[in-house]
Amino acid sequence: MNKKSLLLAASLTVALPALSVPAFAKETLIEAGMKDDIAWDIVEGMTTEVGQRQGGTEAEARARGWSVAKLKSLGLTNARIEEFQMPTWVRGEETGYVTAPFPHKLHISALGNSGSTGDAGLEAEVVYFKTIEALRAAPDGSLTGKIAFVSHAMQRTQDGSSYGAFGPARFVGPNIAAKKGAAAIVIRSAGTDYHRNPHTGNTNFEAGVMPIPAGAVSIPDAENLERIFERGKPVKMKLVLTPQNIGMQTSGNVIADIKGSNSKLPIIVIACHLDSWDLATGAIDDAAGCGIITAAALKVEKPKRTIRLLWAGAEEVGIWGGKDYGEKHANEAHALAMESDFGAGKIWAVDFTLPASAKPLRDSIVSALAPLGIVPRPGPAGGGADIGAIIAAQKLGIIDLQQDGTKYFDLHHTPDDTLDKIDKAELRQNVAAWAATLSLVANYDGELKPEPKP
Amino acid sequence: MNKKSLLLAASLTVALPALSVPAFAKETLIEAGMKDDIAWDIVEGMTTEVGQRQGGTEAEARARGWSVAKLKSLGLTNARIEEFQMPTWVRGEETGYVTAPFPHKLHISALGNSGSTGDAGLEAEVVYFKTIEALRAAPDGSLTGKIAFVSHAMQRTQDGSSYGAFGPARFVGPNIAAKKGAAAIVIRSAGTDYHRNPHTGNTNFEAGVMPIPAGAVSIPDAENLERIFERGKPVKMKLVLTPQNIGMQTSGNVIADIKGSNSKLPIIVIACHLDSWDLATGAIDDAAGCGIITAAALKVEKPKRTIRLLWAGAEEVGIWGGKDYGEKHANEAHALAMESDFGAGKIWAVDFTLPASAKPLRDSIVSALAPLGIVPRPGPAGGGADIGAIIAAQKLGIIDLQQDGTKYFDLHHTPDDTLDKIDKAELRQNVAAWAATLSLVANYDGELKPEPKP
Repeated sequence: MNKKSLLLAASLTVALPALSVPAFAKETLIEAGMKDDIAWDIVEGMTTEVGQRQGGTEAEARARGWSVAKLKSLGLTNARIEEFQMPTWVRGEETGYVTAPFPHKLHISALGNSGSTGDAGLEAEVVYFKTIEALRAAPDGSLTGKIAFVSHAMQRTQDGSSYGAFGPARFVGPNIAAKKGAAAIVIRSAGTDYHRNPHTGNTNFEAGVMPIPAGAVSIPDAENLERIFERGKPVKMKLVLTPQNIGMQTSGNVIADIKGSNSKLPIIVIACHLDSWDLATGAIDDAAGCGIITAAALKVEKPKRTIRLLWAGAEEVGIWGGKDYGEKHANEAHALAMESDFGAGKIWAVDFTLPASAKPLRDSIVSALAPLGIVPRPGPAGGGADIGAIIAAQKLGIIDLQQDGTKYFDLHHTPDDTLDKIDKAELRQNVAAWAATLSLVANYDGELKPEPKP
Repeated sequence: MNKKSLLLAASLTVALPALSVPAFAKETLIEAGMKDDIAWDIVEGMTTEVGQRQGGTEAEARARGWSVAKLKSLGLTNARIEEFQMPTWVRGEETGYVTAPFPHKLHISALGNSGSTGDAGLEAEVVYFKTIEALRAAPDGSLTGKIAFVSHAMQRTQDGSSYGAFGPARFVGPNIAAKKGAAAIVIRSAGTDYHRNPHTGNTNFEAGVMPIPAGAVSIPDAENLERIFERGKPVKMKLVLTPQNIGMQTSGNVIADIKGSNSKLPIIVIACHLDSWDLATGAIDDAAGCGIITAAALKVEKPKRTIRLLWAGAEEVGIWGGKDYGEKHANEAHALAMESDFGAGKIWAVDFTLPASAKPLRDSIVSALAPLGIVPRPGPAGGGADIGAIIAAQKLGIIDLQQDGTKYFDLHHTPDDTLDKIDKAELRQNVAAWAATLSLVANYDGELKPEPKP
């Protein structure tokens, strides 16, 4: 945190106007959050008793059953499942080797929606692209029958902005390579760690473009490949990636409400996602989010507005749960949405998309969060994947409690996303910040939707 | 480093007697070591152009060819291979799943000398032992048909002593479990990291004990298993481990000499090992050691004693190279042995096994190393695996330059032992300390062998 931010935070703590909700709430809730055991209990249980829970699979169905039972055991007797159907892709065998000029085994995982090499695999010459821009610049047809290898320079950032900058190697690289005739594509994992962990994640092919096999290698493997290319000899690779599309399958959202005392007030929806990638137990992505929002909501006593918990299904594989929620609840009046889906690191900033009339609420939240070291930022809040559809449908207010993502992309979508990565104290700081914020917003009876854009 | 050690180091720097070798050597060599590029070049080349090089395999043969060419390119024109035969075990398929009460995929690798489950695998109830002592205490026959799971509490230590304390889960656990009738054994990896990396390594079965399948799971997997056991329900596991013994194969040592000016003086042998485990490129274990000893030896100009480089073969899988060297060179006069095989961390301590008459040499070395932050320890030097046979045969003097092993067991025998883990500045500090020490010892013409033990 810089000095200016510190001074700003200090001045806000002292100078802000009186709250429109009882002043006792924030301190009590922050204390309660900092002692919370519920979030850890949810994360520990979900990772241990369910484990991986990829969207559309039997494991995710087990996770829904586990979740409803857990929420009911926490007193949320209205916990329920809303099922939906979605096209489902599942991983098969995955091996990779550099076969020339030096033999090396690769640690590789297929990207979601990858094509298959077939059981016999594919061996071909590899063409190296230092960046996604270099791949874009390759002449059409220049990759025919070859494997494209795309690297990048993603580094750790507190706000995760490096994912936006370097993620396109995964998001669109395979589609670009396929259109240029490549037989397959291998990317340097969109990550920031130095372990032999590939980072999976969805990629998308345009309609009419046949999916090619697309995999991510671990960063040590990628850097070894770069050193091999420095030797200037032709590089060959053998890949076996045999994922399959298994058609429409059942997924679902788990939903529970903390009923508000004034049923006429539009509701607050708070989201995490229940599904994980299949390579790990999804502790930070996103069992932590479900733990945080639930523990926090349970600490808000008798809110005026209903707080709805949305543990969304099938986020990783296409945000199917968020879209389904947006459609099924389009006619139910919502006021504001929040989401926790960026790990379990400490919250360091808060962003708002609120109407001008809600300045007293915004100021109250800033004041309540200042003792936790959380600073307000000037820009609007962006929301999150699973609340995107309902926000768009109803033009909702948004509050983002921004987590420190410095280490998030060390773990994101890797086999390393396991319970041991979560710091209990940081998890509790999240619960405290969420509880204080929710208490203020759920007891605010003014307008929460921002002014329409001109 | 504690305060007492700091004072001790300071007093030694000031108070020690004059050197028996030219005083210019140490500072010049330390400067040269701190600018060294040779060690990095060797590690970078071996990990990139060879990669994994398990003892007894074709990959190790390629590594020997690469090594002789590299040593010759560095001016060591007498670089040569001494082949030997050894029994060879190779990894097969390896998968593991918890099948009850909650399904989980395990990250597992077979231990060297593990038996095979056969292609169909093995599914059985799992019995949990918190420590190797608890396994020892299990009644004979109590494990019949079951899988033993042995955990432990290994933590990071600077001197690596935790490996001695907790390594027996791997070293002897499988033999104990086999004798008690277990169908297989799974251990918590003998390591200190929290990544989904199993730590392989050899285990040994007594003559007459049929090897059972024996694997190590990653530490996140082991802790998940412990949490599953806390639920109190029966735990089942399915293992497929299909390693094979492929009989006697060729391995070999790579040897090169820096000729001394006085051929009547017994030689100094300095060792690393050329082979690695198969899961990674063996950067810290032990390409780094080969880089360090070679770069250092090349900096010693015109030594009186011959300095012999021993890049030993097949260390990981049974110290075959060290034994072969001890046998083949039993009649050649050696004076002292040193080894680098504990990674690439900074050297923090020096140990000696020397005769009392060599006190001036010892003091000179301590004085030379003090500016690098290296402290002398009171105990004798222990040597290392590959110099063990020649030390035992000829009762040699020994100097150990002790590396900081705090993070060594994060990487040891895992897929993560790759080039990116090496800090160039720390590697250079090793070269500097080795060059200064070698210069002093190789120009010392007094007795180096310790007095016979009473």
